Amino acid sequence: MHVTMVKKVFLDGSPCQKCAQAEALLKRRGLWSLIDEVIVAKEADPGSPGMRLAEERGVELAPFFLVREGQRDEVYTSVLELVQQRLAPNGAGANGAGAVTASSAEAGDSALTDDEAHDLNLRFEGAPPVDMIAYVLERYGKSATIAFSGAEDVALIEMAASTGLPFSVFTLETGRLHPETYRFIDKVRSHYGIAIHCVFPDRVRVEELVRKKGLFSFYQDGHGECCAIRKVEPLGRALAGYRAWISGQRRDQSPTRSEVANFELDKARAGAAGPLLKSNPLAAWSLAETWRFLREKGGPTNELHERGFVSIGCEPCTRALRPGEHERAARWWWEESTQRECGLHTGKTLWPSKL
Amino acid sequence: MHVTMVKKVFLDGSPCQKCAQAEALLKRRGLWSLIDEVIVAKEADPGSPGMRLAEERGVELAPFFLVREGQRDEVYTSVLELVQQRLAPNGAGANGAGAVTASSAEAGDSALTDDEAHDLNLRFEGAPPVDMIAYVLERYGKSATIAFSGAEDVALIEMAASTGLPFSVFTLETGRLHPETYRFIDKVRSHYGIAIHCVFPDRVRVEELVRKKGLFSFYQDGHGECCAIRKVEPLGRALAGYRAWISGQRRDQSPTRSEVANFELDKARAGAAGPLLKSNPLAAWSLAETWRFLREKGGPTNELHERGFVSIGCEPCTRALRPGEHERAARWWWEESTQRECGLHTGKTLWPSKL
Amino acid sequence: MHVTMVKKVFLDGSPCQKCAQAEALLKRRGLWSLIDEVIVAKEADPGSPGMRLAEERGVELAPFFLVREGQRDEVYTSVLELVQQRLAPNGAGANGAGAVTASSAEAGDSALTDDEAHDLNLRFEGAPPVDMIAYVLERYGKSATIAFSGAEDVALIEMAASTGLPFSVFTLETGRLHPETYRFIDKVRSHYGIAIHCVFPDRVRVEELVRKKGLFSFYQDGHGECCAIRKVEPLGRALAGYRAWISGQRRDQSPTRSEVANFELDKARAGAAGPLLKSNPLAAWSLAETWRFLREKGGPTNELHERGFVSIGCEPCTRALRPGEHERAARWWWEESTQRECGLHTGKTLWPSKL
Amino acid sequence: MHVTMVKKVFLDGSPCQKCAQAEALLKRRGLWSLIDEVIVAKEADPGSPGMRLAEERGVELAPFFLVREGQRDEVYTSVLELVQQRLAPNGAGANGAGAVTASSAEAGDSALTDDEAHDLNLRFEGAPPVDMIAYVLERYGKSATIAFSGAEDVALIEMAASTGLPFSVFTLETGRLHPETYRFIDKVRSHYGIAIHCVFPDRVRVEELVRKKGLFSFYQDGHGECCAIRKVEPLGRALAGYRAWISGQRRDQSPTRSEVANFELDKARAGAAGPLLKSNPLAAWSLAETWRFLREKGGPTNELHERGFVSIGCEPCTRALRPGEHERAARWWWEESTQRECGLHTGKTLWPSKL
Repeated sequence: MHVTMVKKVFLDGSPCQKCAQAEALLKRRGLWSLIDEVIVAKEADPGSPGMRLAEERGVELAPFFLVREGQRDEVYTSVLELVQQRLAPNGAGANGAGAVTASSAEAGDSALTDDEAHDLNLRFEGAPPVDMIAYVLERYGKSATIAFSGAEDVALIEMAASTGLPFSVFTLETGRLHPETYRFIDKVRSHYGIAIHCVFPDRVRVEELVRKKGLFSFYQDGHGECCAIRKVEPLGRALAGYRAWISGQRRDQSPTRSEVANFELDKARAGAAGPLLKSNPLAAWSLAETWRFLREKGGPTNELHERGFVSIGCEPCTRALRPGEHERAARWWWEESTQRECGLHTGKTLWPSKL
Repeated sequence: MHVTMVKKVFLDGSPCQKCAQAEALLKRRGLWSLIDEVIVAKEADPGSPGMRLAEERGVELAPFFLVREGQRDEVYTSVLELVQQRLAPNGAGANGAGAVTASSAEAGDSALTDDEAHDLNLRFEGAPPVDMIAYVLERYGKSATIAFSGAEDVALIEMAASTGLPFSVFTLETGRLHPETYRFIDKVRSHYGIAIHCVFPDRVRVEELVRKKGLFSFYQDGHGECCAIRKVEPLGRALAGYRAWISGQRRDQSPTRSEVANFELDKARAGAAGPLLKSNPLAAWSLAETWRFLREKGGPTNELHERGFVSIGCEPCTRALRPGEHERAARWWWEESTQRECGLHTGKTLWPSKL
Repeated sequence: MHVTMVKKVFLDGSPCQKCAQAEALLKRRGLWSLIDEVIVAKEADPGSPGMRLAEERGVELAPFFLVREGQRDEVYTSVLELVQQRLAPNGAGANGAGAVTASSAEAGDSALTDDEAHDLNLRFEGAPPVDMIAYVLERYGKSATIAFSGAEDVALIEMAASTGLPFSVFTLETGRLHPETYRFIDKVRSHYGIAIHCVFPDRVRVEELVRKKGLFSFYQDGHGECCAIRKVEPLGRALAGYRAWISGQRRDQSPTRSEVANFELDKARAGAAGPLLKSNPLAAWSLAETWRFLREKGGPTNELHERGFVSIGCEPCTRALRPGEHERAARWWWEESTQRECGLHTGKTLWPSKL
Repeated sequence: MHVTMVKKVFLDGSPCQKCAQAEALLKRRGLWSLIDEVIVAKEADPGSPGMRLAEERGVELAPFFLVREGQRDEVYTSVLELVQQRLAPNGAGANGAGAVTASSAEAGDSALTDDEAHDLNLRFEGAPPVDMIAYVLERYGKSATIAFSGAEDVALIEMAASTGLPFSVFTLETGRLHPETYRFIDKVRSHYGIAIHCVFPDRVRVEELVRKKGLFSFYQDGHGECCAIRKVEPLGRALAGYRAWISGQRRDQSPTRSEVANFELDKARAGAAGPLLKSNPLAAWSLAETWRFLREKGGPTNELHERGFVSIGCEPCTRALRPGEHERAARWWWEESTQRECGLHTGKTLWPSKL
């Protein structure tokens, strides 16, 4: 495969912004080395190599890419499509909803055991989170996936992108997220050039709950019933084809998370080959460390964080943090603090698991 | 059936607020005459009839209702449940998603024709909208349903409630509504004591679109594809069991709606018995008339209207109106104004209809 | 002085809300013991004592108060006016802008010395803040005043009110506060029944700065010049007639405040008799302790705190706190963190002091 | 006077944005013809004329301007300062607060009469507003000033700028404007390169009102008292040195404005030489025409207009327009609609005028 990038220079000599952004994206993803050749289209000079190539191919947008493979070549005017279809196709491919069958060759045939998880925790004790992510992506390949909540766990994606390895990402699109969170998910998608699989709730269950109890039953009955429908069942579906998943849980997030390990066996859900490996590479990091990392990297963040939000879930169940509060106080605030888990990260799921 | 309401009076002599609200709701719905007896529970006097009844039945909430039918009697502590299960059960029952089979006895066996729709337009020319609603509810009974968009078409519900007839309401819960609209739908539900059937999109279609094009493809490709999945297909499902529907379309809303009639044949969708009767009782009203009506009635309105919103749809596709703009300018503003229909009200649906 | 309060009971037996609020306010201020008699006006009984009194005096509002002093009596229909004019007149009187001459008899003639401030710090080490406030109010009487910033230092007012002593409060109404802060200041005023002296900047200086540099010069030049005009000079005026002031500074607010003492000599400003005593009763409290106190007391707080704001100053110079940030990061964020003082609490004022 | 502009070209060949903006500003103000020479500083070529000039003069910012007059020359790195001090100094000069003595030579000695105003109305009937503005600016020169409210009357400034004549602008900076309005005023200032004189209320009066009645007395007593202090008195001061003023009043704004003429005698205020000429060039325009003009010109507008605000005044006294309302309904909405004038445009001022 031979990849040519065509960049434009405008009449007044200034370089094209979109071209610069595409280049930055490729570098961010560790894919720049796959571009074999860069040629320039000078608007002022119709005879320049890039301008002639554009004319030959009938391309009207910049930048564009020419991918030659054997006899065939193909033009891409979207860097996102280039990445997902040609440069990092595994990531994109693995991203399908449950459609992927685990390639057992990759990770060995035997199911993971508690002992192995224990060993991994010892091996990676004190290691930087990115090392754990690289380990999971290397070991499980397209059988691993990253859970993205729409908040500061974008750090996981930043790290995964920096490894240059293919990876897939999913998020639980509950139908009740903040408008700002939808916008953020889309910014993450284009910033890193990745597909994000948005897992959606089942309409029959949603319609039934809403018909019986209205749209805000959680304020009366507790959030368990709604989370079971909009988060836990979809999570089960999202993970069905995988053997490992990576989450952004941290010990400092909540009293209920104070024991979170870097690696654990997720027995509550049925993966492609029995219990999944669940990795929480940020387990030992504090909120402040996570944010220091994000600010240093300068990637996109959810604009709600500029309005006092820390932990971010569904819109009716999340509020800005008030002075002196712990971050978890702003989730399901009408319930007891030891009940404030949505069921994604507990052994006892609220929804019957497939095991 | 004999219905007793128990109202409370507090120790300091003041009446219970919840009791007063329940009474107001029953009057608003024209159901107050179904309450056969009202007795008082005086907190200061444990021997008062209401207090004794509460003790006998082990009830701890006020108000409560006792419904006797033959030998059986039953306690209700929720006025909403009382209304939906006993006082206006048709409304609630009819509200199921497609579960209802049209009672053809009610509306005659023959399918509606264009001529009949024409005659209805002549018959109701200049009539107040509430008369048209009463006509549809009387003729079609539980085979009629009201489409509620979450905006000023709450006027339809106000009118339907005032008829004292049972009625059912649905809304398209697209998964991308404003948080304010979800809250408004719930306020409408409890203000009128009605179930609102929230029709939800099919997850397979949503997930597929989002995986391919992200969460904001409409800004690039136009809103047709997304509306087809989140609105048009669900609308088809919502109407499948019905023979008539009532919508809030008005001629002054848009150039594309300047021909809207009070009654028309909806040939684009499959109802329970062929084409549905579609009634647009507000067709001839202006925006200002509709709002004069709403302000006079003092019912709930979407809080977005206090932030400059007029027409309200999905969050990413609606904005506040700017000075001097026509209301439709604030929907799908990046497209040509003659294209600004979501497909709900066009003969040509974007999604293959079941006919 | 003999004070009668007339409370109303409505036709349906329920007590009047406004009457209950007035009573709560009087208790909150420690003034309830000054009400000698409470009589009831029953709407249902025109012959009840309260109804007859209302008719005699031609009063149409409830509650109302009758204050008899010698031969004269006077009706008050506003509890705020009753408090400020009759029950706690010193507080109100002292509140004038610079109009007050210190009653030197109260505090002794000699000017305060550094040694005395030092002794006070030893004496009150570890004491609850309310004790320090009571000390200052008792010693200086109407020559002491509380500086209120519109944020969590409302705790000072809550404490002062609980002492039952008269006190006065001022705030710097810079002309650029958040709309929410103006609303909060007014809520504090009516919740505690106090006048709040809003010190306003001098128009000649404001107009001159704005003409030369526009309305946002601080983003270019630093906030010192604008603060000097809108805060520091007005502070000098606010304190001119006083001998002591109380501020809400805490050590944990900022690196620049890590040395703040409970009592210090304010040599930067000219009080009524030389250097003022400045008391910072919250110096040793943390943000969390302050908020625990406020939540326990249930008094009014600035609604900005529910949108992620912690420290609150002028609108263009304050933002919500982002995750993992220290509270001071959200003030003058474009400047070096060691420069983030507005000049109110520094020995070196930016504006020439009158000393 | 000879003016040289130095523009920069960056290393990669792209032109400097700031330079382009400065050029656009000069063209927008009709001042581009005063630039005698433009030379380029190529970052890539230290020997280019512009780079050498920058080095000679020790200038580090681009663009910069060199103004030669006789023997002296001077460097400007701010295009705003260049405009206000050298290219359109009358505008800036006239902008002082009351400091300007009317040059009676310009406008004739005799005071304006009602007959003359009447004649002007006949002469300009149906004329475009910009003609009336040009007339006033030409006739009165620096003795005329434009009143800018922070809303759509920015159209007046757009028109004045297009005449190429010097002009001055003032606004009433009441201390209670929306944060968005302050930002907008500043955007207007830099977009047109003009000083905007922000007239500020007198602190003694503000402090007195607030001490007596709190910060929101207008909701109880009506807005007259507060407007008198924050708007009417400052307006008198703002106009004291002038002979004519231009306002954005339109007949369609309010029932109280249905008689507004293009030219009238302002007898309520004391100008530099008796009654002022008041011109309302937009009197006959509708809201929609005004906004069509603004959108066509693409200048800055108040961001509140994107949140449903039409008419904009002080923050506590303005709200977004609700569906079906007339624009004036969103000002002082708690008062009778015929009272909704702030006193700026009435013959009877609420504050004793100086006449």
